[in-house]
Amino acid sequence: MQSTRTVQAVVLASVPEGVPVATDFTTTEQALPEVGPGQVRVAVRDLSLDPYIRSTLGGSHLGDAPVKPGGVVGGRAVGEVVESRSDSLAVGDLVVAETGWVSEAVVEASAATKVDLPSGVPASAALGVLGMPGLTAYAALERHVMPAAGETVVVSSATGGVGALAGQLLAAAGARPVAIVGSREKAALATQKLGYAAAVVRGSDTFADDLRAACPDKVNGYLHMGDQATLDVVMEQLAVGARVSLIGVMDQSNGAPATRVRAGAVMAARATLMGMVIYDHFDLAAEHVAKVGALVAAGEIAAFEDRTVGLDQAGAAFARMMSGANVGKAVVEVSRRV
Amino acid sequence: MQSTRTVQAVVLASVPEGVPVATDFTTTEQALPEVGPGQVRVAVRDLSLDPYIRSTLGGSHLGDAPVKPGGVVGGRAVGEVVESRSDSLAVGDLVVAETGWVSEAVVEASAATKVDLPSGVPASAALGVLGMPGLTAYAALERHVMPAAGETVVVSSATGGVGALAGQLLAAAGARPVAIVGSREKAALATQKLGYAAAVVRGSDTFADDLRAACPDKVNGYLHMGDQATLDVVMEQLAVGARVSLIGVMDQSNGAPATRVRAGAVMAARATLMGMVIYDHFDLAAEHVAKVGALVAAGEIAAFEDRTVGLDQAGAAFARMMSGANVGKAVVEVSRRV
Repeated sequence: MQSTRTVQAVVLASVPEGVPVATDFTTTEQALPEVGPGQVRVAVRDLSLDPYIRSTLGGSHLGDAPVKPGGVVGGRAVGEVVESRSDSLAVGDLVVAETGWVSEAVVEASAATKVDLPSGVPASAALGVLGMPGLTAYAALERHVMPAAGETVVVSSATGGVGALAGQLLAAAGARPVAIVGSREKAALATQKLGYAAAVVRGSDTFADDLRAACPDKVNGYLHMGDQATLDVVMEQLAVGARVSLIGVMDQSNGAPATRVRAGAVMAARATLMGMVIYDHFDLAAEHVAKVGALVAAGEIAAFEDRTVGLDQAGAAFARMMSGANVGKAVVEVSRRV
Repeated sequence: MQSTRTVQAVVLASVPEGVPVATDFTTTEQALPEVGPGQVRVAVRDLSLDPYIRSTLGGSHLGDAPVKPGGVVGGRAVGEVVESRSDSLAVGDLVVAETGWVSEAVVEASAATKVDLPSGVPASAALGVLGMPGLTAYAALERHVMPAAGETVVVSSATGGVGALAGQLLAAAGARPVAIVGSREKAALATQKLGYAAAVVRGSDTFADDLRAACPDKVNGYLHMGDQATLDVVMEQLAVGARVSLIGVMDQSNGAPATRVRAGAVMAARATLMGMVIYDHFDLAAEHVAKVGALVAAGEIAAFEDRTVGLDQAGAAFARMMSGANVGKAVVEVSRRV
């Protein structure tokens, strides 16, 4: 019994060099297998674009299989169950699952997580502020930075999926969040909407001086997602006892030279530098969804999304995100609930 | 009333480039001031040679004044009070004080610490296993590495002042200490006398393979005192959850390029990297002297010393230590108790 169902899929056209471009991806069609016992067929609604995907393109991410040219790009999505051979999921259920960049996928029901959010919160929040990027911000603050009231905490990529929540959580905790961003427009967004007390634009000749001015009491905590130059500048501004959470390094994602940290800066500040891998912190997920979900439902925390419509636009949207042009969590709207 | 007392002193002849050499130092005489109220005159018995001294030679160490050519080299020593204008110290007391490289010094009694060691322990232990290097090893293990029984902990400069105690403390705690050393002779010493389960000689073509073979379960903890190449090799062997204590970097001491740590290695291991500055851990000193002192007095921990006789040999001994040729705590015997 061969399935005749055909779905859209985005495959890797060529392995990107450095920052991906739209033409590294191409949209094609592929046959969908039949739904087996314990499996469900999911119609993808919102596809999640995340920086870790870059490292799977021709390479590997913590043991994930590399995506080769012609292969479907991996990733997770919110989707709706449209066919079920599982007792645990029914048609109409919304789930988060590893579907890849496709319009429909057949997945194991046991590997799909039913979306269970406070009322009034859109399902796509399960990919952003209440999903992996949100949990990353939550865990980096709870377990690495542990900010005390009044402490200065710097966040790079401050308007991205992780940074947008980090600023708001830090402000709510009484700390003093300082944003590092890529443009004046993002600086305005960070201070006006995301709780940041100050925002500094990286990449300019005055970046180090600007950061120093924005952090007169030096830097007690730092969430790093960015490039070597940004890291170097922040490391020289650490206060004694600073905590640094390494969340993402650009070389991991874009093939740049390996990011390195000056050991003398760690020693001079008696700093603690930690590596953040979100898979280690899933035990915090329920607490994160409960606490942050309540704040989102109450309108006290904003869930910013950078939304692109159409699966065939996924490659272009991903390239845009990896060049730092997104604001908030990047998602691709593949289909809407009927 | 001008003092006519003249003492020996070692001054900096020229600012070293890279690893110091004996001719960077010269022995001279200088006049000693009279002993003022609250001061004592101390006859130096054993002078302590420590890597941090290198960074004061023409440069600065955590705010210490730099030593310029013609200036007396700084450092601490065990000495005997030979004249006192203080109620807190009497003639004949042994003290640890910042005397510099001199035969006699006048110091504030309040800045001199009376040597109070278990009976049977030589006073020079207050410079080594029961002094700053010993406290460094103790604090790095207690507060940074926190070794569990069975864990593999790598120590570089394993036969130096810090490493010699670290190996013995780790073995006593049921951990598996692995030494990184500069020669086969030191490797034998590390495994035969200092508690190390294995020892690897750095600098050879097979160093990375040798370390891998010596650490089949990877590296749970690392005490770093050494060069960039050593750090790079160990960082790639970290187990998940590893703790790394940065105790000393060669560039700090010998003018080499800044030591840098690959951020991706910290992230892949979810490692915690910490800067060790001993001044932050003086609150552990009493506990350290009590616990380790009892083990030394009982003969369960050996206090290795690299002893050179004669103040005029201090420069040569320091150069030897900074090239890594010492075994155990480096001291210069300036005079013996009469």
